Amino acid sequence: MTRVVGYIFLLLIFFCGALSAQNDRREDAFMIKDLFDEALSDGKAYDWLRVLTKEVGPRLAGSPGAAAAVTHMKQIIDTLGFDTVYLQPCVAPRWERGDPAVGRVVNNNQIGTQDLNVIALGNSIGTGPMGITAEIVEVHSLDTLEQLGSAELEGKIVFFNRPMDPRQLNTFSAYGGAVDQRVFGANEAGKYGAVATLVRSMASGLNDVPHTGTMIYAEDARKIPGLAVSTNDADMLSRLLQQGSVRVHLRSNCRNLPPIETYNIIAEKTGSTYPDEIILVGGHLDSWDIGEGAHDDGTGCVQSMQVLPLLQALDYRPQRTLRCVLFMNEENGLAGGKAYWAASNEAGEFHLLAIESDRGGFTPQGFTAEAEDEVFADYLRKLDSWLPLVEPYGLTFSSGGSGADISGLKSQGGLLLGLKPDSQRYFDYHHTAADRLEAVNPRELMLGAAAMTTLVYLTDKYGLR
Amino acid sequence: MTRVVGYIFLLLIFFCGALSAQNDRREDAFMIKDLFDEALSDGKAYDWLRVLTKEVGPRLAGSPGAAAAVTHMKQIIDTLGFDTVYLQPCVAPRWERGDPAVGRVVNNNQIGTQDLNVIALGNSIGTGPMGITAEIVEVHSLDTLEQLGSAELEGKIVFFNRPMDPRQLNTFSAYGGAVDQRVFGANEAGKYGAVATLVRSMASGLNDVPHTGTMIYAEDARKIPGLAVSTNDADMLSRLLQQGSVRVHLRSNCRNLPPIETYNIIAEKTGSTYPDEIILVGGHLDSWDIGEGAHDDGTGCVQSMQVLPLLQALDYRPQRTLRCVLFMNEENGLAGGKAYWAASNEAGEFHLLAIESDRGGFTPQGFTAEAEDEVFADYLRKLDSWLPLVEPYGLTFSSGGSGADISGLKSQGGLLLGLKPDSQRYFDYHHTAADRLEAVNPRELMLGAAAMTTLVYLTDKYGLR
Repeated sequence: MTRVVGYIFLLLIFFCGALSAQNDRREDAFMIKDLFDEALSDGKAYDWLRVLTKEVGPRLAGSPGAAAAVTHMKQIIDTLGFDTVYLQPCVAPRWERGDPAVGRVVNNNQIGTQDLNVIALGNSIGTGPMGITAEIVEVHSLDTLEQLGSAELEGKIVFFNRPMDPRQLNTFSAYGGAVDQRVFGANEAGKYGAVATLVRSMASGLNDVPHTGTMIYAEDARKIPGLAVSTNDADMLSRLLQQGSVRVHLRSNCRNLPPIETYNIIAEKTGSTYPDEIILVGGHLDSWDIGEGAHDDGTGCVQSMQVLPLLQALDYRPQRTLRCVLFMNEENGLAGGKAYWAASNEAGEFHLLAIESDRGGFTPQGFTAEAEDEVFADYLRKLDSWLPLVEPYGLTFSSGGSGADISGLKSQGGLLLGLKPDSQRYFDYHHTAADRLEAVNPRELMLGAAAMTTLVYLTDKYGLR
Repeated sequence: MTRVVGYIFLLLIFFCGALSAQNDRREDAFMIKDLFDEALSDGKAYDWLRVLTKEVGPRLAGSPGAAAAVTHMKQIIDTLGFDTVYLQPCVAPRWERGDPAVGRVVNNNQIGTQDLNVIALGNSIGTGPMGITAEIVEVHSLDTLEQLGSAELEGKIVFFNRPMDPRQLNTFSAYGGAVDQRVFGANEAGKYGAVATLVRSMASGLNDVPHTGTMIYAEDARKIPGLAVSTNDADMLSRLLQQGSVRVHLRSNCRNLPPIETYNIIAEKTGSTYPDEIILVGGHLDSWDIGEGAHDDGTGCVQSMQVLPLLQALDYRPQRTLRCVLFMNEENGLAGGKAYWAASNEAGEFHLLAIESDRGGFTPQGFTAEAEDEVFADYLRKLDSWLPLVEPYGLTFSSGGSGADISGLKSQGGLLLGLKPDSQRYFDYHHTAADRLEAVNPRELMLGAAAMTTLVYLTDKYGLR
């Protein structure tokens, strides 16, 4: 009899547990709906983005624009309800573009002299005041350089012209498949006596806009200048080469100055119950020195800033410590990220979750996730259990890289997420003068902020195990 | 013994059937991948859209622009591999906007005289050459008119100011919840002696761009002019009204001319095996008379035109008859759709499937489906069986309206689908001067064309039962 009562008791516990889980699920669904409602009707991220793009503008690390960005955004963040907001110093390289680069087809038989839409690559040296004039040699991969060798490349401008593969549904995959030409092209071509490199812009389509971006010299490299050319002009050069040799004149006066101290902005709201478990949301505050750095990565910054205000608007008080971090120098050095990881590791911190938004402010489609092998399966199971809550908003989870600025936190054993928006338009704007506020849709931006806040809310409430 | 052999025989049949189904599935997955690859690398829809938006431009039914659209697009369609291309006559109303409308706050104590961003609504009468000057009365629903009655509305301009609900994830739902003010506002307000109506633009956000669109008078209506005002100016008027009365001057000289003959374009490829089962893809060729009608509905037209070329590039010969139809006069009368349904019904045709694209050329998220009750469950089961093939492309199926131009085909007993793209940006452009080619991303456009072609392919190969 006692045994039967015992069974009934157990059944009751089980039943109440199931009921309570069901109630939690319902409460979560309402909370998430409220988060999205609040974001879409009263979100402020677009207003903050207007400040960052129109009042500050371009803000390459080490530049006056970057300093202004730190000041302006800290002023805003100071009003958002964090317990503390502070600047974390880091030392960034200082590269200056100088005058707009010049590119010109010189005395070609078919078109005579004609201007090209070119732009210097970040970290590149300049051409010198007289510029460089030489024949161009078209190649489609770094490997080709070795085959051609100094015999074919000595004194030439190497023209890297392998396009981003249009068949990749995810444009970031296409970018990953082509960007080695931009990053390592000049370093490699220098080995064979080339005098400069001209790389087809990392763009999804055909147009006249050149895309800048970082390039890297090895320490012992024979440094030659690297420039990018618009996709339309790259196609034109390729057509001209089918008729005969093509000489091009390139001129740029970019230069490297001594490194300079700059800052990450860190805002923190201490958790009520588990203050030692940190949940981080962030983007990078620096941008390239052209355009307005709207999608790269103004949107990631203001989405991260929006998270705490959204939770507070719904009277949700985080149990865990919430940090909003705007990282400096993602574009050409990652000094901010590295400084943050070092300080965090030294303090023995544990980031339970870090979310970066650095793929543009487009309609969110979910998150990519990464973590150390021994905990990843657990985390994925937890994320999967939340799928029914986030799928109505078009969100799913997949494994993949999270974000450059948070990647170094992986060894702490937490979960790293990267917001994954629709990627189709990103490489129309990426690293160009066209990356402006007008290219950002306020609703798409706010949906991303709400998506991030949803994951913060669920992780804060339930943990990840 | 014979029985055992029989069983083995049956098992073998079953086994081979399962193998064959598996092979089909694999073949389909490759075919769909090829369709998307082909669309993204060699699709021509964007080039055709350039002709329709830049060479033809705006093309309200009955206008010279609409006639030019018929001529230009038929010339292109003639080259796409159809067996026959012909024009189907229909009679469209002819409304002319006349000069750009004028709207002005008149002698308000706070701001003095100030211009408003207004636009006349389609089908509206004009104000007469002297315009109309009157106090405005703000209301948020048609129901309020009866409560206010003639006592409050006689001689006034009714200002409809209920916004599209920003919390709706799907902006079409928000549009549906607000557009009654635009369509029926003037008709209703006229009953109470109002002299004109000014309606808040059907826009997702705050800006200075007024949105036109159709309005309807009942046959016996006391007709008064209807205009739309930008969302920024609507907010300003509302703020001014909180301080006191506001007088507004409105002037427009739109007019209705006698109806005129115009055309649908119909292109047909006869099916090899089931010529009597028709699969239709279509959009509407007409647009409003401002902007370029890029997303509404140039993209739907060129996506529909892309379907047969994509199939042919992969050497797929349709078993069923494929029709591409560009409908006339969707915006202000649906004369093209009605003419098409009447002719089709009279000929005893059966449309097994009809797909319309008329929600913009953005990243596709799937299809909305409708059909007669007695067949709908069967069709949904078939669509569900294809989910594993289309989900990798971000596509799902849901029940819902298909498209105005094909809605009248439902009674034939086939399946109607509406392409469902991401809706966040649509009401930034819809019925405005901003709906231009530049607002269309070529990749997003092509993904929609590939999605439509995928459904055509599967339906053509397997039928729907």
